[in-house]
Amino acid sequence: MTHGTTSPHPAEPAPAPRRGRPRDAARDRALLDATLAVLAENGYGGLTTAAVAARAGVSTATLYRRWSSKEELVIAAAALHGESSYEQPGTGTLEGDLRVVLREKAAAMTGEPGRLIRALIGEAAHNTALAEALVTAFLQPLYDRVAEVVRRAVERGEIPPLDGVELLGEVVVGPVMTHFLLTPRLPEDVDQATARETADRLLPFALRAVGGTP
Amino acid sequence: MTHGTTSPHPAEPAPAPRRGRPRDAARDRALLDATLAVLAENGYGGLTTAAVAARAGVSTATLYRRWSSKEELVIAAAALHGESSYEQPGTGTLEGDLRVVLREKAAAMTGEPGRLIRALIGEAAHNTALAEALVTAFLQPLYDRVAEVVRRAVERGEIPPLDGVELLGEVVVGPVMTHFLLTPRLPEDVDQATARETADRLLPFALRAVGGTP
Repeated sequence: MTHGTTSPHPAEPAPAPRRGRPRDAARDRALLDATLAVLAENGYGGLTTAAVAARAGVSTATLYRRWSSKEELVIAAAALHGESSYEQPGTGTLEGDLRVVLREKAAAMTGEPGRLIRALIGEAAHNTALAEALVTAFLQPLYDRVAEVVRRAVERGEIPPLDGVELLGEVVVGPVMTHFLLTPRLPEDVDQATARETADRLLPFALRAVGGTP
Repeated sequence: MTHGTTSPHPAEPAPAPRRGRPRDAARDRALLDATLAVLAENGYGGLTTAAVAARAGVSTATLYRRWSSKEELVIAAAALHGESSYEQPGTGTLEGDLRVVLREKAAAMTGEPGRLIRALIGEAAHNTALAEALVTAFLQPLYDRVAEVVRRAVERGEIPPLDGVELLGEVVVGPVMTHFLLTPRLPEDVDQATARETADRLLPFALRAVGGTP
Protein backbone atom coordinates (compact mmCIF):
# COMPACT_ATOMS: atom_id res chain seq x y z
CA MET A 1 0.00 0.00 0.00
CA THR A 2 1.29 3.34 -0.99
CA HIS A 3 -0.53 5.39 1.58
CA GLY A 4 -0.28 2.70 4.20
CA THR A 5 1.93 4.52 6.67
CA THR A 6 -1.04 5.48 8.79
CA SER A 7 -3.53 2.70 7.99
CA PRO A 8 -2.99 -1.00 8.74
CA HIS A 9 -2.91 -3.51 5.85
CA PRO A 10 -6.46 -4.83 5.44
CA ALA A 11 -5.32 -8.46 4.94
CA GLU A 12 -3.49 -8.69 8.26
CA PRO A 13 -4.46 -7.88 11.82
CA ALA A 14 -3.47 -4.31 12.65
CA PRO A 15 -0.08 -4.41 14.42
CA ALA A 16 -0.48 -2.64 17.78
CA PRO A 17 -2.81 0.11 16.52
CA ARG A 18 -2.10 3.47 18.07
CA ARG A 19 -5.66 3.98 19.20
CA GLY A 20 -5.96 0.37 20.44
CA ARG A 21 -9.02 -0.46 18.31
CA PRO A 22 -8.69 -3.76 16.40
CA ARG A 23 -11.66 -2.99 14.15
CA ASP A 24 -10.13 0.27 12.88
CA ALA A 25 -9.10 -1.19 9.52
CA ALA A 26 -12.55 -2.52 8.70
CA ARG A 27 -14.17 0.71 9.86
CA ASP A 28 -11.71 2.80 7.81
CA ARG A 29 -12.55 0.75 4.74
CA ALA A 30 -16.30 1.10 5.38
CA LEU A 31 -15.89 4.87 5.69
CA LEU A 32 -13.91 5.10 2.44
CA ASP A 33 -16.43 2.94 0.58
CA ALA A 34 -19.20 5.15 1.92
CA THR A 35 -17.26 8.21 0.74
CA LEU A 36 -17.08 6.83 -2.81
CA ALA A 37 -20.78 5.99 -2.78
CA VAL A 38 -21.75 9.48 -1.58
CA LEU A 39 -19.35 11.08 -4.10
CA ALA A 40 -20.90 9.09 -6.94
CA GLU A 41 -24.40 10.14 -5.86
CA ASN A 42 -23.91 13.78 -4.86
CA GLY A 43 -20.57 14.89 -6.30
CA TYR A 44 -17.89 16.62 -4.26
CA GLY A 45 -19.98 19.71 -3.53
CA GLY A 46 -22.83 17.61 -2.19
CA LEU A 47 -20.68 15.38 0.00
CA THR A 48 -20.78 15.99 3.74
CA THR A 49 -18.86 14.11 6.41
CA ALA A 50 -22.21 13.66 8.20
CA ALA A 51 -23.66 11.82 5.19
CA VAL A 52 -20.57 9.61 4.92
CA ALA A 53 -20.58 8.79 8.63
CA ALA A 54 -24.30 7.98 8.54
CA ARG A 55 -23.87 5.69 5.53
CA ALA A 56 -20.98 3.85 7.22
CA GLY A 57 -22.99 3.58 10.43
CA VAL A 58 -20.53 5.48 12.62
CA SER A 59 -20.59 8.86 14.32
CA THR A 60 -19.07 11.96 12.74
CA ALA A 61 -16.69 12.10 15.72
CA THR A 62 -15.38 8.65 14.75
CA LEU A 63 -14.82 9.83 11.18
CA TYR A 64 -12.94 12.92 12.39
CA ARG A 65 -10.68 10.82 14.64
CA ARG A 66 -9.32 9.30 11.43
CA TRP A 67 -9.54 12.14 8.86
CA SER A 68 -9.51 15.73 9.94
CA SER A 69 -11.26 17.21 6.90
CA LYS A 70 -13.53 16.45 3.98
CA GLU A 71 -10.54 16.91 1.62
CA GLU A 72 -8.48 14.32 3.50
CA LEU A 73 -11.34 11.85 3.50
CA VAL A 74 -12.00 12.19 -0.23
CA ILE A 75 -8.33 11.92 -1.11
CA ALA A 76 -8.00 8.75 0.97
CA ALA A 77 -11.05 7.28 -0.77
CA ALA A 78 -9.68 8.15 -4.20
CA ALA A 79 -6.28 6.70 -3.27
CA LEU A 80 -7.96 3.43 -2.27
CA HIS A 81 -9.62 3.34 -5.69
CA GLY A 82 -6.36 3.94 -7.57
CA GLU A 83 -4.11 1.98 -5.23
CA SER A 84 -3.19 -0.80 -7.63
CA SER A 85 -1.66 1.65 -10.11
CA TYR A 86 1.24 2.51 -7.84
CA GLU A 87 3.65 -0.35 -8.47
CA GLN A 88 7.06 0.22 -10.02
CA PRO A 89 7.28 -1.54 -13.41
CA GLY A 90 10.30 -3.77 -13.98
CA THR A 91 10.15 -5.15 -17.52
CA GLY A 92 13.87 -4.59 -18.05
CA THR A 93 13.46 -2.18 -20.97
CA LEU A 94 12.53 1.49 -21.17
CA GLU A 95 9.86 0.80 -23.77
CA GLY A 96 8.34 -1.99 -21.66
CA ASP A 97 8.32 0.09 -18.49
CA LEU A 98 6.81 3.13 -20.22
CA ARG A 99 4.14 0.90 -21.77
CA VAL A 100 3.14 -0.30 -18.29
CA VAL A 101 2.97 3.25 -16.90
CA LEU A 102 0.97 4.62 -19.86
CA ARG A 103 -1.49 1.71 -19.93
CA GLU A 104 -2.09 1.92 -16.19
CA LYS A 105 -2.63 5.66 -16.36
CA ALA A 106 -5.00 5.34 -19.31
CA ALA A 107 -6.97 2.73 -17.37
CA ALA A 108 -7.04 4.96 -14.28
CA MET A 109 -8.26 7.97 -16.29
CA THR A 110 -11.22 6.08 -17.75
CA GLY A 111 -14.09 4.02 -16.40
CA GLU A 112 -15.27 4.56 -12.84
CA PRO A 113 -11.93 5.85 -11.44
CA GLY A 114 -11.80 8.31 -14.34
CA ARG A 115 -15.14 9.80 -13.36
CA LEU A 116 -13.89 10.21 -9.81
CA ILE A 117 -10.56 11.75 -10.84
CA ARG A 118 -12.25 14.14 -13.25
CA ALA A 119 -14.67 15.27 -10.53
CA LEU A 120 -11.80 15.81 -8.08
CA ILE A 121 -9.68 17.72 -10.59
CA GLY A 122 -12.67 19.87 -11.40
CA GLU A 123 -13.09 20.67 -7.72
CA ALA A 124 -9.34 21.18 -7.25
CA ALA A 125 -9.51 24.00 -9.81
CA HIS A 126 -10.98 26.18 -7.05
CA ASN A 127 -9.99 24.31 -3.90
CA THR A 128 -6.31 24.69 -3.09
CA ALA A 129 -6.35 22.23 -0.17
CA LEU A 130 -7.79 19.53 -2.41
CA ALA A 131 -5.36 20.41 -5.22
CA GLU A 132 -2.43 20.03 -2.83
CA ALA A 133 -3.75 16.73 -1.53
CA LEU A 134 -4.29 15.43 -5.08
CA VAL A 135 -0.74 16.30 -6.07
CA THR A 136 0.67 14.65 -2.95
CA ALA A 137 -1.46 11.52 -3.20
CA PHE A 138 -1.54 10.94 -6.96
CA LEU A 139 0.63 13.08 -9.11
CA GLN A 140 3.91 13.05 -7.18
CA PRO A 141 4.01 9.24 -6.73
CA LEU A 142 3.27 8.85 -10.45
CA TYR A 143 5.93 11.37 -11.46
CA ASP A 144 8.45 9.70 -9.14
CA ARG A 145 7.69 6.39 -10.80
CA VAL A 146 8.30 7.85 -14.28
CA ALA A 147 11.56 9.47 -13.14
CA GLU A 148 12.73 6.13 -11.73
CA VAL A 149 11.88 4.30 -14.98
CA VAL A 150 13.94 6.81 -16.95
CA ARG A 151 16.78 6.87 -14.40
CA ARG A 152 17.19 3.10 -14.68
CA ALA A 153 17.16 3.29 -18.50
CA VAL A 154 20.00 5.84 -18.32
CA GLU A 155 21.81 3.54 -15.87
CA ARG A 156 21.46 0.60 -18.28
CA GLY A 157 22.84 2.78 -21.08
CA GLU A 158 19.61 2.61 -23.09
CA ILE A 159 19.36 6.42 -23.34
CA PRO A 160 21.78 9.28 -22.67
CA PRO A 161 21.35 11.37 -19.50
CA LEU A 162 18.69 14.09 -19.83
CA ASP A 163 18.32 17.72 -18.85
CA GLY A 164 15.07 18.75 -17.18
CA VAL A 165 14.47 15.47 -15.34
CA GLU A 166 12.05 17.26 -13.01
CA LEU A 167 9.69 17.57 -16.00
CA LEU A 168 9.76 13.87 -16.96
CA GLY A 169 6.44 13.06 -15.28
CA GLU A 170 4.62 15.76 -17.20
CA VAL A 171 6.37 14.86 -20.45
CA VAL A 172 5.54 11.14 -20.27
CA VAL A 173 2.11 11.14 -18.60
CA GLY A 174 0.88 14.65 -19.51
CA PRO A 175 -0.34 13.61 -22.98
CA VAL A 176 -2.40 10.65 -21.71
CA MET A 177 -3.89 12.76 -18.89
CA THR A 178 -4.70 15.55 -21.34
CA HIS A 179 -6.24 13.06 -23.76
CA PHE A 180 -8.78 11.78 -21.24
CA LEU A 181 -9.26 14.92 -19.13
CA LEU A 182 -9.59 17.72 -21.66
CA THR A 183 -12.33 16.18 -23.72
CA PRO A 184 -16.10 16.43 -23.72
CA ARG A 185 -16.25 12.64 -23.68
CA LEU A 186 -17.11 11.29 -20.24
CA PRO A 187 -14.30 9.09 -18.86
CA GLU A 188 -16.74 6.29 -17.99
CA ASP A 189 -17.74 6.10 -21.66
CA VAL A 190 -14.22 5.07 -22.72
CA ASP A 191 -13.90 1.29 -22.69
CA GLN A 192 -10.71 -0.32 -21.44
CA ALA A 193 -9.65 -1.65 -24.85
CA THR A 194 -9.77 1.89 -26.27
CA ALA A 195 -7.88 3.28 -23.28
CA ARG A 196 -5.14 0.68 -23.76
CA GLU A 197 -4.91 1.32 -27.48
CA THR A 198 -4.55 5.07 -26.89
CA ALA A 199 -1.74 4.40 -24.41
CA ASP A 200 0.04 2.22 -26.97
CA ARG A 201 -0.30 4.88 -29.68
CA LEU A 202 1.17 7.50 -27.32
CA LEU A 203 4.07 5.20 -26.37
CA PRO A 204 6.40 5.94 -29.35
CA PHE A 205 6.09 9.69 -28.67
CA ALA A 206 6.91 9.23 -24.97
CA LEU A 207 9.83 6.98 -25.82
CA ARG A 208 11.30 9.45 -28.34
CA ALA A 209 10.68 12.37 -25.94
CA VAL A 210 13.07 10.87 -23.38
CA GLY A 211 15.68 9.98 -25.99
CA GLY A 212 14.71 6.40 -26.83
CA THR A 213 14.10 4.82 -30.24
CA PRO A 214 10.70 3.18 -30.88
CA MET B 1 -9.92 36.90 -35.45
CA THR B 2 -10.38 33.24 -35.04
CA HIS B 3 -13.99 33.26 -33.93
CA GLY B 4 -14.85 36.23 -36.08
CA THR B 5 -17.25 34.49 -38.44
CA THR B 6 -20.28 35.73 -36.51
CA SER B 7 -18.97 38.92 -34.88
CA PRO B 8 -17.84 42.01 -36.77
CA HIS B 9 -14.25 43.21 -36.45
CA PRO B 10 -14.19 45.70 -33.56
CA ALA B 11 -11.81 48.12 -35.33
CA GLU B 12 -14.06 48.66 -38.35
CA PRO B 13 -17.73 49.54 -38.75
CA ALA B 14 -19.77 46.35 -38.97
CA PRO B 15 -20.34 45.57 -42.65
CA ALA B 16 -24.10 45.30 -43.24
CA PRO B 17 -24.91 43.72 -39.85
CA ARG B 18 -27.56 41.04 -40.08
CA ARG B 19 -29.69 42.60 -37.38
CA GLY B 20 -29.15 46.10 -38.75
CA ARG B 21 -27.70 47.49 -35.49
CA PRO B 22 -24.44 49.44 -36.01
CA ARG B 23 -23.59 49.39 -32.28
CA ASP B 24 -23.65 45.56 -32.06
CA ALA B 25 -19.86 45.21 -31.98
CA ALA B 26 -19.41 47.64 -29.10
CA ARG B 27 -22.30 46.08 -27.22
CA ASP B 28 -20.94 42.55 -27.81
CA ARG B 29 -17.60 43.67 -26.43
CA ALA B 30 -19.24 45.29 -23.39
CA LEU B 31 -21.18 42.10 -22.70
CA LEU B 32 -18.04 39.95 -22.94
CA ASP B 33 -16.09 42.31 -20.68
CA ALA B 34 -18.97 42.19 -18.21
CA THR B 35 -18.91 38.40 -18.40
CA LEU B 36 -15.22 38.31 -17.46
CA ALA B 37 -15.80 40.72 -14.59
CA VAL B 38 -18.69 38.67 -13.19
CA LEU B 39 -16.71 35.43 -13.66
CA ALA B 40 -13.76 36.89 -11.75
CA GLU B 41 -16.05 37.98 -8.91
CA ASN B 42 -18.48 35.08 -8.62
CA GLY B 43 -16.93 32.15 -10.49
CA TYR B 44 -18.79 30.14 -13.12
CA GLY B 45 -21.38 28.78 -10.70
CA GLY B 46 -22.26 32.27 -9.49
CA LEU B 47 -22.52 33.82 -12.95
CA THR B 48 -26.00 34.56 -14.28
CA THR B 49 -26.91 36.07 -17.63
CA ALA B 50 -29.03 38.56 -15.68
CA ALA B 51 -25.98 39.81 -13.73
CA VAL B 52 -23.94 40.11 -16.93
CA ALA B 53 -26.70 41.97 -18.76
CA ALA B 54 -27.19 44.34 -15.82
CA ARG B 55 -23.47 45.08 -15.63
CA ALA B 56 -23.29 45.79 -19.36
CA GLY B 57 -26.39 47.99 -19.10
CA VAL B 58 -28.51 45.96 -21.52
CA SER B 59 -31.56 43.73 -21.14
CA THR B 60 -31.29 39.97 -20.79
CA ALA B 61 -33.27 39.71 -24.04
CA THR B 62 -30.50 41.64 -25.81
CA LEU B 63 -27.91 39.27 -24.40
CA TYR B 64 -29.89 36.25 -25.57
CA ARG B 65 -30.24 37.66 -29.08
CA ARG B 66 -26.46 37.25 -29.36
CA TRP B 67 -25.69 34.19 -27.19
CA SER B 68 -28.27 31.54 -26.56
CA SER B 69 -26.84 30.15 -23.32
CA LYS B 70 -24.58 30.88 -20.38
CA GLU B 71 -22.06 28.38 -21.79
CA GLU B 72 -21.91 30.15 -25.15
CA LEU B 73 -21.47 33.52 -23.47
CA VAL B 74 -18.63 32.33 -21.22
CA ILE B 75 -16.83 30.58 -24.06
CA ALA B 76 -17.04 33.72 -26.19
CA ALA B 77 -15.63 35.78 -23.32
CA ALA B 78 -12.80 33.32 -22.77
CA ALA B 79 -12.05 33.24 -26.50
CA LEU B 80 -11.78 37.03 -26.51
CA HIS B 81 -9.27 36.77 -23.68
CA GLY B 82 -7.15 34.16 -25.46
CA GLU B 83 -7.67 35.45 -28.99
CA SER B 84 -4.09 36.57 -29.62
CA SER B 85 -2.73 33.05 -29.07
CA TYR B 86 -4.29 31.69 -32.24
CA GLU B 87 -1.79 32.73 -34.89
CA GLN B 88 0.14 30.17 -36.91
CA PRO B 89 3.90 30.45 -36.20
CA GLY B 90 6.20 30.69 -39.20
CA THR B 91 9.79 30.78 -37.98
CA GLY B 92 10.93 28.41 -40.71
CA THR B 93 12.17 25.70 -38.34
CA LEU B 94 10.38 23.03 -36.34
CA GLU B 95 12.22 24.05 -33.16
CA GLY B 96 11.36 27.72 -33.66
CA ASP B 97 7.69 27.02 -34.37
CA LEU B 98 7.34 24.67 -31.39
CA ARG B 99 9.00 27.29 -29.17
CA VAL B 100 6.37 29.83 -30.19
CA VAL B 101 3.49 27.42 -29.53
CA LEU B 102 4.82 26.29 -26.14
CA ARG B 103 5.62 29.82 -24.93
CA GLU B 104 2.20 31.11 -25.99
CA LYS B 105 0.46 28.22 -24.29
CA ALA B 106 2.48 28.67 -21.09
CA ALA B 107 1.57 32.36 -21.09
CA ALA B 108 -2.11 31.52 -21.67
CA MET B 109 -2.14 28.98 -18.82
CA THR B 110 -0.77 31.47 -16.28
CA GLY B 111 -1.67 34.94 -15.09
CA GLU B 112 -5.25 36.17 -15.46
CA PRO B 113 -6.16 33.99 -18.48
CA GLY B 114 -4.84 30.97 -16.56
CA ARG B 115 -7.21 31.60 -13.70
CA LEU B 116 -10.09 31.79 -16.14
CA ILE B 117 -9.09 28.65 -18.04
CA ARG B 118 -8.61 26.70 -14.82
CA ALA B 119 -12.06 27.75 -13.59
CA LEU B 120 -13.64 26.75 -16.91
CA ILE B 121 -11.88 23.39 -17.03
CA GLY B 122 -12.97 22.75 -13.46
CA GLU B 123 -16.56 23.46 -14.45
CA ALA B 124 -16.23 21.43 -17.66
CA ALA B 125 -15.44 18.37 -15.53
CA HIS B 126 -19.17 18.15 -14.80
CA ASN B 127 -20.70 20.22 -17.57
CA THR B 128 -20.63 18.45 -20.93
CA ALA B 129 -21.95 21.43 -22.91
CA LEU B 130 -19.15 23.62 -21.57
CA ALA B 131 -16.58 20.87 -22.15
CA GLU B 132 -17.65 20.58 -25.78
CA ALA B 133 -17.54 24.32 -26.25
CA LEU B 134 -14.06 24.52 -24.68
CA VAL B 135 -12.73 21.81 -26.97
CA THR B 136 -14.24 23.51 -30.02
CA ALA B 137 -13.10 27.02 -29.09
CA PHE B 138 -9.67 26.34 -27.59
CA LEU B 139 -8.30 22.86 -27.83
CA GLN B 140 -9.07 21.96 -31.43
CA PRO B 141 -7.64 25.19 -32.93
CA LEU B 142 -4.51 24.68 -30.81
CA TYR B 143 -4.15 21.04 -31.83
CA ASP B 144 -4.69 21.97 -35.49
CA ARG B 145 -1.91 24.54 -35.18
CA VAL B 146 0.49 21.94 -33.73
CA ALA B 147 -0.40 19.44 -36.46
CA GLU B 148 0.28 22.09 -39.12
CA VAL B 149 3.67 22.98 -37.57
CA VAL B 150 4.68 19.32 -37.67
CA ARG B 151 3.22 18.75 -41.15
CA ARG B 152 5.34 21.56 -42.55
CA ALA B 153 8.47 20.21 -40.82
CA VAL B 154 7.85 16.84 -42.50
CA GLU B 155 7.33 18.65 -45.82
CA ARG B 156 10.65 20.49 -45.39
CA GLY B 157 12.35 17.17 -44.68
CA GLU B 158 13.29 18.17 -41.11
CA ILE B 159 11.66 15.09 -39.61
CA PRO B 160 10.37 11.80 -41.05
CA PRO B 161 6.59 11.27 -41.38
CA LEU B 162 4.93 10.17 -38.14
CA ASP B 163 2.30 7.67 -37.12
CA GLY B 164 -0.43 8.85 -34.76
CA VAL B 165 -0.60 12.43 -36.09
CA GLU B 166 -4.04 12.82 -34.49
CA LEU B 167 -2.25 12.73 -31.10
CA LEU B 168 0.30 15.45 -31.92
CA GLY B 169 -1.58 18.21 -30.10
CA GLU B 170 -1.70 16.23 -26.86
CA VAL B 171 1.92 15.12 -27.21
CA VAL B 172 3.30 18.63 -27.77
CA VAL B 173 1.00 20.77 -25.61
CA GLY B 174 -0.20 18.18 -23.05
CA PRO B 175 2.92 18.51 -20.86
CA VAL B 176 2.70 22.31 -20.59
CA MET B 177 -1.05 22.16 -19.89
CA THR B 178 -0.50 19.46 -17.27
CA HIS B 179 2.32 21.49 -15.71
CA PHE B 180 0.13 24.52 -15.05
CA LEU B 181 -3.25 22.83 -14.57
CA LEU B 182 -2.51 19.88 -12.32
CA THR B 183 -0.74 21.79 -9.59
CA PRO B 184 -1.82 23.34 -6.33
CA ARG B 185 -0.10 26.56 -7.40
CA LEU B 186 -2.60 29.14 -8.59
CA PRO B 187 -2.01 30.05 -12.26
CA GLU B 188 -2.09 33.79 -11.47
CA ASP B 189 0.84 33.28 -9.09
CA VAL B 190 3.14 32.13 -11.92
CA ASP B 191 4.96 35.12 -13.40
CA GLN B 192 5.47 35.35 -17.14
CA ALA B 193 9.26 34.87 -16.97
CA THR B 194 8.76 31.55 -15.15
CA ALA B 195 6.07 30.48 -17.61
CA ARG B 196 8.38 31.19 -20.53
CA GLU B 197 11.31 29.37 -18.91
CA THR B 198 9.14 26.30 -18.29
CA ALA B 199 8.07 26.31 -21.94
CA ASP B 200 11.71 26.47 -23.03
CA ARG B 201 12.68 23.59 -20.74
CA LEU B 202 9.84 21.48 -22.17
CA LEU B 203 10.86 22.31 -25.76
CA PRO B 204 13.63 19.66 -26.20
CA PHE B 205 11.21 16.93 -25.06
CA ALA B 206 8.51 18.10 -27.50
CA LEU B 207 11.04 18.31 -30.31
CA ARG B 208 12.38 14.80 -29.68
CA ALA B 209 8.85 13.43 -29.27
CA VAL B 210 8.00 14.36 -32.87
CA GLY B 211 11.28 13.04 -34.22
CA GLY B 212 13.42 16.18 -34.17
CA THR B 213 16.88 16.70 -32.68
CA PRO B 214 17.32 19.45 -30.06
